[in-house]
Amino acid sequence: MREIHPEHLDDMARGAGILGTGGGGDPYVGKLLAQHAIREHGPVTVVDIHEVPPDATVVAISGMGAPTVSLEKIPAGTEEVTALRALERFLGRQATHLVPIEVGGLNSMTPFIAAARTRLPVVDGDAMGRAFPEAQMVLPGLIGVTVAPMAVADDKGNTLVLETVSNLWSERLARTACVEMGCSVSCADTVMRGDQLADGLVPATLTLAEDLGRTVREARAAHGDPVAAAARLLGGVRLLTGKVADVQRRTSGGFARGQARLDGLGGDDGRSLELSFQNEHLLARRDGEIVATTPDLICVLDTDSGEPVTTEGLRYGLRVTVLGVPCDPRWLTPGGLELAGPRYFGYDTDHVSLNR
Amino acid sequence: MREIHPEHLDDMARGAGILGTGGGGDPYVGKLLAQHAIREHGPVTVVDIHEVPPDATVVAISGMGAPTVSLEKIPAGTEEVTALRALERFLGRQATHLVPIEVGGLNSMTPFIAAARTRLPVVDGDAMGRAFPEAQMVLPGLIGVTVAPMAVADDKGNTLVLETVSNLWSERLARTACVEMGCSVSCADTVMRGDQLADGLVPATLTLAEDLGRTVREARAAHGDPVAAAARLLGGVRLLTGKVADVQRRTSGGFARGQARLDGLGGDDGRSLELSFQNEHLLARRDGEIVATTPDLICVLDTDSGEPVTTEGLRYGLRVTVLGVPCDPRWLTPGGLELAGPRYFGYDTDHVSLNR
Repeated sequence: MREIHPEHLDDMARGAGILGTGGGGDPYVGKLLAQHAIREHGPVTVVDIHEVPPDATVVAISGMGAPTVSLEKIPAGTEEVTALRALERFLGRQATHLVPIEVGGLNSMTPFIAAARTRLPVVDGDAMGRAFPEAQMVLPGLIGVTVAPMAVADDKGNTLVLETVSNLWSERLARTACVEMGCSVSCADTVMRGDQLADGLVPATLTLAEDLGRTVREARAAHGDPVAAAARLLGGVRLLTGKVADVQRRTSGGFARGQARLDGLGGDDGRSLELSFQNEHLLARRDGEIVATTPDLICVLDTDSGEPVTTEGLRYGLRVTVLGVPCDPRWLTPGGLELAGPRYFGYDTDHVSLNR
Repeated sequence: MREIHPEHLDDMARGAGILGTGGGGDPYVGKLLAQHAIREHGPVTVVDIHEVPPDATVVAISGMGAPTVSLEKIPAGTEEVTALRALERFLGRQATHLVPIEVGGLNSMTPFIAAARTRLPVVDGDAMGRAFPEAQMVLPGLIGVTVAPMAVADDKGNTLVLETVSNLWSERLARTACVEMGCSVSCADTVMRGDQLADGLVPATLTLAEDLGRTVREARAAHGDPVAAAARLLGGVRLLTGKVADVQRRTSGGFARGQARLDGLGGDDGRSLELSFQNEHLLARRDGEIVATTPDLICVLDTDSGEPVTTEGLRYGLRVTVLGVPCDPRWLTPGGLELAGPRYFGYDTDHVSLNR
């Protein structure tokens, strides 16, 4: 158990931005909103999974929508609590702990916004060990925990509470509401008991994000190689160092979708890497060959600074290095691959192991 | 107070089909579903508005969607109760009475489906005195009763409960969910106390529908003129007798939209009438001149049989007579016209009084 103050969130948001594999929302926006909430309401307690009582009511807090939208349509900062209260009213009981649904730039921070305002503790972990674009892509789904009941709230004060027959229906109905509400909303869902967290969460990912963010910052300050330092910490493999040569992007169906092409520089001169994304990076082809696929993490970092580059931050000429990072092993089970493997997203390939 | 048995619904559905002004869903489908529910669970009690205790909790039950869809995708008959239970869970109390949101072919019957299954009484009245296409077009809106909290349920078992900042947002969010759920869902909403019914409802429209249906049936049996009998009962004016010459129809945004042209026959030879509709008929132009507009009722009846013809039932060659029927006077107040007058639907005209 420890207290999180605004200054802790700089490193955590940076690291979560890297683990977000291009998605999970913009780390800068999320950090500012969470820091503002903590300054106003006081520090947030973070607890380890094993510190949570077995009968605790743990609620995942997140933002849903296209990161391209949330960058310009900044959340009001009240939607998280509105969603939480609507869910609690439905449940007939109050949440005892909050948890991130994913460790991504914005979505690692959203639970802190709600936690500061409600004085609830945040659990150190998340339901993916990375970021994914769709609501049903969560490890709790593999142990029978449903996304619904799911509350969705917008910046205007509209809320809805969903009960569904499947997690795919939760995604479909929340997504269409999200689009109609302006493509950037807050969600409270995936209610777990404390004794389900060991199986339902990837543990200690908030601490990992903070360590990662600190490592990058310190390597940069020491004039070292922040990207190499990040790769060492994560056990990641370098896929390409180059510059962004082309980006095709569209916001459709409530997602930011597209492709980017990187041309190699230095040791990678003459090579190219093509990234395909739906909010998050899903597939990397190097010189036409698939070298990394979802559910492994495909992380794009600024080559000089080691800062995370989100899919919506990709722009022509940017110098970046792409890392492949192994996902939580539960994602490589048949159930995990069915939820978030490359075939779910329409790519005609099995999961490809990262070459070390 | 009286008991409604399956045989009462034949006349009521026919009359409600006429009062539904082309919309409100297909009377035949609604009647069969309600008769089935009553045969299975027992008769339904209908009470007058003044018989409802002041502190009663009255919930409006309806179907939402495009009638073109509900004709082919028959409701399961369980959605109404699913929606009601979701709303009750949100309210933290049980409904004491049900009421139709509109007196239309299907939607005059949906409360009977839920009432038979729950043994709750149905209030003799409705929130429009006709059918309208959008959720916010209800008289309770003029006295500050909100549509939300609003529960929506589909045939698969998915439900959502909305809380919104305005009735227009209730319509928007319920409509997008409806489209995603398959364009035919059930709703429970517009919660009123008993002492709000006198101002919020048009009284005795179920009885009116049954009287109207009986009048048409008896005139037909006596080889009389069922359309003239209906017009007399409703104080309606005949706009044209003719045959359907052209129908343009599309299902878009969760509505059945289109235009129909009728060519006059007999005394109307050489004249034509153009109808514009969005689920319900909204505007009638005779020889280019606007002769009837929403919120007045524009009712299309089979010239020979007096049976109601819904907008989705319009087809080439059908012999029909179009009646204009004055709406409830509250719809002609500034607030009423703002909700459901011709300008709301994009027609550049004020309300046109029906010429007797």
